[in-house]
Amino acid sequence: MSSTPLAIDSGRLMETFEAMNRIGATAAGGVHRLALSEEDRRARDLLVHWARQSGYAVAVDAIGSVFLRRDGRDGDAPPIVIGSHLDSQPMAGRYDGPAGVLTALEVLRTLDDAGIATARPVEVVDWTNEEGARFAPPLLGSAVFSGALGLDDALAITDADGVVLGDALADIGYAGAEQPGHPIAGYVEVHIEQGRVLERRGASIGIVTGVVGIRDLRITVTGESTHAGPTPLADRRDALVGASEMVLALNRLGLDRGEGARVTVGRFEVPSASHSVVPGRVAFVVDLRHPAQEGVDGLEAEVRETVRAIGEERGLDVTIEPFFSNPARPFHDDVRSAIARAAAAHGLPVHDLPSWAGHDAWNMAPLAPSGMIFIPCRDGVSHNEAEHAEPRHLIDAANVLLGTTLALAGPA
Amino acid sequence: MSSTPLAIDSGRLMETFEAMNRIGATAAGGVHRLALSEEDRRARDLLVHWARQSGYAVAVDAIGSVFLRRDGRDGDAPPIVIGSHLDSQPMAGRYDGPAGVLTALEVLRTLDDAGIATARPVEVVDWTNEEGARFAPPLLGSAVFSGALGLDDALAITDADGVVLGDALADIGYAGAEQPGHPIAGYVEVHIEQGRVLERRGASIGIVTGVVGIRDLRITVTGESTHAGPTPLADRRDALVGASEMVLALNRLGLDRGEGARVTVGRFEVPSASHSVVPGRVAFVVDLRHPAQEGVDGLEAEVRETVRAIGEERGLDVTIEPFFSNPARPFHDDVRSAIARAAAAHGLPVHDLPSWAGHDAWNMAPLAPSGMIFIPCRDGVSHNEAEHAEPRHLIDAANVLLGTTLALAGPA
Repeated sequence: MSSTPLAIDSGRLMETFEAMNRIGATAAGGVHRLALSEEDRRARDLLVHWARQSGYAVAVDAIGSVFLRRDGRDGDAPPIVIGSHLDSQPMAGRYDGPAGVLTALEVLRTLDDAGIATARPVEVVDWTNEEGARFAPPLLGSAVFSGALGLDDALAITDADGVVLGDALADIGYAGAEQPGHPIAGYVEVHIEQGRVLERRGASIGIVTGVVGIRDLRITVTGESTHAGPTPLADRRDALVGASEMVLALNRLGLDRGEGARVTVGRFEVPSASHSVVPGRVAFVVDLRHPAQEGVDGLEAEVRETVRAIGEERGLDVTIEPFFSNPARPFHDDVRSAIARAAAAHGLPVHDLPSWAGHDAWNMAPLAPSGMIFIPCRDGVSHNEAEHAEPRHLIDAANVLLGTTLALAGPA
Repeated sequence: MSSTPLAIDSGRLMETFEAMNRIGATAAGGVHRLALSEEDRRARDLLVHWARQSGYAVAVDAIGSVFLRRDGRDGDAPPIVIGSHLDSQPMAGRYDGPAGVLTALEVLRTLDDAGIATARPVEVVDWTNEEGARFAPPLLGSAVFSGALGLDDALAITDADGVVLGDALADIGYAGAEQPGHPIAGYVEVHIEQGRVLERRGASIGIVTGVVGIRDLRITVTGESTHAGPTPLADRRDALVGASEMVLALNRLGLDRGEGARVTVGRFEVPSASHSVVPGRVAFVVDLRHPAQEGVDGLEAEVRETVRAIGEERGLDVTIEPFFSNPARPFHDDVRSAIARAAAAHGLPVHDLPSWAGHDAWNMAPLAPSGMIFIPCRDGVSHNEAEHAEPRHLIDAANVLLGTTLALAGPA
């Protein structure tokens, strides 16, 4: 390799980015491009149009994920897949998803410009329904691709209006013929961090160590529902007071772990809707995240101990049930070191960090060596029209993705 | 007065009680007799039937409250009114309400048996919709009687099925002609305590000092809604964690007051319904009760100070709005002392205590000297099919109501 590494066309990348984000643009500078909506169709059509302009083969699988293929010297070798998603949350940002798909497209175009033939094919992917905003669950296209979710089950999912996913896919013309899950040799995804770590560290490039394990427990606290008047406070078994103490204790447990874990109570329900009734029952979900699976197990043990002790002290019944679980998945050393070398070649400051949220790369990790490249986003804001990433960080990410892809696909 | 006071017919009282509670009886030994339902109509019809048997004049006012009148020697004098209500909460107990109406009926019958003519007339009342379970608000009939609620407004209230109260009243045949609010000279109501104070003190008769003041404040806590993954706990402005600290602090504030006050958070809402989102907003209602109005004001000041301090410390915005308020109303000394003397004449152990919940007597207190007689109920349980009062306590209450009525109505 020369001392000046191959670089992408930053003007073209930004033009491509602007063109894509006119689709579903909101007045406040965001996008509204729900999965399998008219806006999603237009976004897909534009991506396919660009593919055909460059002569990339386009394949759409049966769950609608779109693959643009630039052939390699060895036509039969499984490809290196790079990309992300073009769907958005409602009234959301321009960067969550497109940053990954359009830097990937720019990588293919740069290889064309430089006349580089890779050994393996390289494919750009736009995964169907990453967000899960219209059709639950999220990470749908990659889950079907990996076999974690059955194709027929996925096609039968309905949105809030009762629209069946398979019908919506056919309506926008993306019910593809290809069986999801063709063999791949590697997967790399560029994404905004959706947190503030890189911004604070002054790093342009985040080398993602893996996706944290997520475990949600549903905790039900049962006391005694009584009238807010006659019963003195000392005689009550108030489920809300007990659950409040649990929320505070779980928050302290999380705070004690610093940046090494996350403990969140998001869903919290008090079924009695009267101001004059002492709540007899409260149900809440605690969400635990840790980069290592043993760490998730350790958190769960501490949570169980904490809520049981509070329940016992207050004479409240406590039940703890599994609610949701995703195992921690570290990314592959080869991909992480390829990202590190590519960033070093461009002199970019890097920082290693876990992804605290799920991404399609989490579904790919069991299939082939996988990894992610994070870039900073302003104040960590995401899923919001105010979401913002600096052009220079998009450009840096595209250059690092280019170097990483060349390393994995075999440049010479 | 002789040393053996006049006594009611305990067998007749209990037979009357059993007959009434066959109407709307539930399998588990409770009653289900919602206001203006078919069961309420049958209960009213039975009461009117008993009135006609004894020759009492029956008047129904325009909000449906039923008055059985036993004339006094001075026909024009305003009556002493005694009674309570026959409607119930859904799947509720047999004593909440009927204990007051049927002991009052037994008082009239005992006066008949003894051939006693009182100076003032005595009226037994069955107030419309005390419970407020089907039509809100509760204490409806007495509120219209006192002028606190306009008749037309009350008649226009609808239930959850859209049934208009005035139509429901006409349907069961109790849309009376009489303008609500005829002059009264006094009001006395027997009721189960719905708490455990009398049971613990071993008292048969509670002399109610007044109805506590109730003030409800709606508190909204606003932080920042972020993803449960990327944002470290130290960087969050978690509205649920802040609100939980408030619930605990308000509970301690109430516990510190011992039996002298009540502080309850009953309604508590976390609008974000996702386990993976840090709650950005929580709204809850704190219900404050104190026997004295200054006590209610003092509690409110402490609550405001407490939640503001927690909000400030945690960087959360806090708004506090009035939600509901009923002033404290002490009962009249003359009525309290008449109850005390009547109980003493029967050698019954008494205890002075406030009523921590609203009752129709609260609406009557501004109109004329008013009071209440509480009796114990097992474990303080009410609004529940397991509600239970001992027959001897019902009999004691009827005897004390008889003595009190004689004292107020002028026996000789």
